[in-house]
Amino acid sequence: MTIQTLVWGENVHEKTNKVVADLYPEGLHGCIAGALNSADGIEATTATLQDEEHGLTNDRLIDTDVLIWWGHAAHGEVADHVVDRVARHVQAGMGLIVLHSGHFSKIFKKLMGTPCNLTWREAGERERLWVTSRNHPIAAGLPDHFELENEEMYGEPFGIPEPLETVFISWFQGGEVFRSGVTYKRGAGNVFYFRPGHETYPTFYDENVRTVLRSAVMWAHNTAPRIMDVDAAPNVPVEDALEPLTARGPKLHADGEEGYR
Amino acid sequence: MTIQTLVWGENVHEKTNKVVADLYPEGLHGCIAGALNSADGIEATTATLQDEEHGLTNDRLIDTDVLIWWGHAAHGEVADHVVDRVARHVQAGMGLIVLHSGHFSKIFKKLMGTPCNLTWREAGERERLWVTSRNHPIAAGLPDHFELENEEMYGEPFGIPEPLETVFISWFQGGEVFRSGVTYKRGAGNVFYFRPGHETYPTFYDENVRTVLRSAVMWAHNTAPRIMDVDAAPNVPVEDALEPLTARGPKLHADGEEGYR
Amino acid sequence: MTIQTLVWGENVHEKTNKVVADLYPEGLHGCIAGALNSADGIEATTATLQDEEHGLTNDRLIDTDVLIWWGHAAHGEVADHVVDRVARHVQAGMGLIVLHSGHFSKIFKKLMGTPCNLTWREAGERERLWVTSRNHPIAAGLPDHFELENEEMYGEPFGIPEPLETVFISWFQGGEVFRSGVTYKRGAGNVFYFRPGHETYPTFYDENVRTVLRSAVMWAHNTAPRIMDVDAAPNVPVEDALEPLTARGPKLHADGEEGYR
Amino acid sequence: MTIQTLVWGENVHEKTNKVVADLYPEGLHGCIAGALNSADGIEATTATLQDEEHGLTNDRLIDTDVLIWWGHAAHGEVADHVVDRVARHVQAGMGLIVLHSGHFSKIFKKLMGTPCNLTWREAGERERLWVTSRNHPIAAGLPDHFELENEEMYGEPFGIPEPLETVFISWFQGGEVFRSGVTYKRGAGNVFYFRPGHETYPTFYDENVRTVLRSAVMWAHNTAPRIMDVDAAPNVPVEDALEPLTARGPKLHADGEEGYR
Repeated sequence: MTIQTLVWGENVHEKTNKVVADLYPEGLHGCIAGALNSADGIEATTATLQDEEHGLTNDRLIDTDVLIWWGHAAHGEVADHVVDRVARHVQAGMGLIVLHSGHFSKIFKKLMGTPCNLTWREAGERERLWVTSRNHPIAAGLPDHFELENEEMYGEPFGIPEPLETVFISWFQGGEVFRSGVTYKRGAGNVFYFRPGHETYPTFYDENVRTVLRSAVMWAHNTAPRIMDVDAAPNVPVEDALEPLTARGPKLHADGEEGYR
Repeated sequence: MTIQTLVWGENVHEKTNKVVADLYPEGLHGCIAGALNSADGIEATTATLQDEEHGLTNDRLIDTDVLIWWGHAAHGEVADHVVDRVARHVQAGMGLIVLHSGHFSKIFKKLMGTPCNLTWREAGERERLWVTSRNHPIAAGLPDHFELENEEMYGEPFGIPEPLETVFISWFQGGEVFRSGVTYKRGAGNVFYFRPGHETYPTFYDENVRTVLRSAVMWAHNTAPRIMDVDAAPNVPVEDALEPLTARGPKLHADGEEGYR
Repeated sequence: MTIQTLVWGENVHEKTNKVVADLYPEGLHGCIAGALNSADGIEATTATLQDEEHGLTNDRLIDTDVLIWWGHAAHGEVADHVVDRVARHVQAGMGLIVLHSGHFSKIFKKLMGTPCNLTWREAGERERLWVTSRNHPIAAGLPDHFELENEEMYGEPFGIPEPLETVFISWFQGGEVFRSGVTYKRGAGNVFYFRPGHETYPTFYDENVRTVLRSAVMWAHNTAPRIMDVDAAPNVPVEDALEPLTARGPKLHADGEEGYR
Repeated sequence: MTIQTLVWGENVHEKTNKVVADLYPEGLHGCIAGALNSADGIEATTATLQDEEHGLTNDRLIDTDVLIWWGHAAHGEVADHVVDRVARHVQAGMGLIVLHSGHFSKIFKKLMGTPCNLTWREAGERERLWVTSRNHPIAAGLPDHFELENEEMYGEPFGIPEPLETVFISWFQGGEVFRSGVTYKRGAGNVFYFRPGHETYPTFYDENVRTVLRSAVMWAHNTAPRIMDVDAAPNVPVEDALEPLTARGPKLHADGEEGYR
């Protein structure tokens, strides 16, 4: 079974900033897809902000097992109806992996229900990621810690709900810490946020980071057939009750009426 | 210290449905506020959909320790900017208690990041609430179970994120179960959803329900001074780093520049 | 990859009670192993209380990906050193599925840190299991609810820590509810408790129950190589520190000394 | 209402090590109790390993709202029956705060169900604690971070179950991170682990640490009357069922018989 993975990239700085263009000539999304395609059992393609419907049509999402999201400068340009569509697919069982500056993406904030804010500093400082959940599927094959010599700093407090699991915590040279790998579930969809990945550094060429990405895709994949009516609120009539039941008392709703929303 | 509690009622069926008007002549919000005002240490007032800004101005929210929400037929009429304002206050530390059909309110769905859907039946059937977390502050003073002879049924699956704690689970005569009392935290704000409270039944006169409401207000109250910049994402310049640091590598941001959102 | 699954059965009532012996001629463990062996990718064997070391030697556990536990009358006869050994393997990554009356087993209480108590009634009443986490891997392929016409009742409050996830909640004919499927993680080991399975009823022949058992084995399987030093607490000498460091201040421990336990 | 707090100290290094004796002439427990008694609403007393029953008789625990635990060199000398007694009181609603090297105490390991191991280094290095849950009651009144100039290092991975909430994460000068403040619930008892407090440093004189201790006591206090039968597993006879019920099928237990344990 091959996991169909769609890597979504904002694809803005790759076009406008020479440092980023030189570092990621195929785009950050292209580099990430390459890391995934090197693994057995994963088939990765890409889509970008500039594509029609941002490349995230319903048909495309139906065929996507896991979606990876990298965005930074253009969160506001992602159309709300596309965000709603992605959210529905996550609820229905599509995995979602949000990277780095994607903490402020519409889709992540919508699924978290919180501001997802943090402190930051762009100084190319050393980041050391510590595994806090040894042998977690997402941390499989990693040492207890690994380093990225140059990264942007993100610092606590990180405005997220309490995670289901905390998999990585980062140490920064300048004195901060950050929950760098956290898992959530939204409906049937597994959600993983992974901190590293500033566009001016070669983070997505790092072998440990690439290992995390591949493991995260496998972890996020829900093999169950997707159930798309994620917000159905069906009425169960008295005559269909599972136990014998006689209606009693005053009623607000006529028989067969839909509920309010 | 008195907990300033604001009971928000949609106040629609109280005006348009004779059963509801007769049962709750002061509105559901009035009845709930009365239950709270019978407790030492709680001072409850009310606001409704029809008030200017739905009665939820910034000044009013600043003075509110805990907000209680009852809505049903008019979720769509609540203004988005008011919902955003309430969400910010919750993040900053205001407690929020969402009742019954409020599961489909904009504020609850926004804070949960999920559809919050369920199955339902209006048949005046028996509901029995079981305490799943004995001696939880919200369940203090209750027996291990209590009954409501006539209630609307809500059934699983309930489309919510995994709760921080599950305090009550309901048994229904017609054969369903439901997580009837669940807690969350969003920022510094405690959030409690409590299932009972259909407007055509005398639920809010039930002594056990009134006990839960009073205990939930006390539980939801965060005594820390509210921090309102809930989505600040400050840059920490290199020269202000907590540990000695020299900037390295290429930069995307000019010094002192704001981050992207 | 085949998941090596070991089904542990207490094997007492199968020998001493005619009802149980007639219903499960190969033992409950034999019936459960049969259900698992009908699935691709699972290879199940059995062990019982009466085997030397209860069949749970270190060598056997090393070769076990997922352990299933059914016990009832003889929890006290399970040797403590074997329980400690099983716990270490769970911490190291072995999956553990505890069934029914196993809620009072030494291994489950040890891993939970709570009494794991409940209320109960043996009356052959109807149990209806509701899926509370649609499309959870453990609930894959199931309808939103299924029934067992005759089961023992277990009622809340259930003395467990707050689960990582609640997958099933049961409705009982006599008026109780119970969290029937709950997940935990202990170290690298996935733990699932599943309620049904009283020995005087044909529960383990039920197709939905067998589906749950197979799905639970797949969910519990951690594919990462097992790390066995689960309680190592290594000293990191100053000269091996990851960042330049000079020791300061008074010391309790001589260089190279082991820490206290 | 005054919170009766009992500070338990191992009281070994205070007697055997001159550095510790000079720094904490009244013992670590005496210093901690002093910090608590400076707060309105808290009354703190002390008990030590050397007291009869370690000072933790049933009568003493009944009168204790919150127990604080500091131990290091003599975990193995704490009697198992006393640990069991403390655990039962926690389950029943007594708050428990475990400090520093108490991570390896019998009571903490028993309640966690995990090894609670970590890495460590005694080098008097700088520790900086970051608040990860702004305005959490335990972090009330604190800045977003504070420093301890000399502390022992504890490093991840920390062998604990996923916390209910992570309140503090520490940065260490030597390059490690650690989840320094984590909450749990065991039965009705609130449990908080707080990392700082090595006996050769003046940590318990630090004003921020003392603020945390006071806030943690208030957070851990469950005001509900204690329910002591924490492991009762009562049979509910058919004739006492809440809904009409007729017993069916074969039975294992005679009427009125106790369940197995």
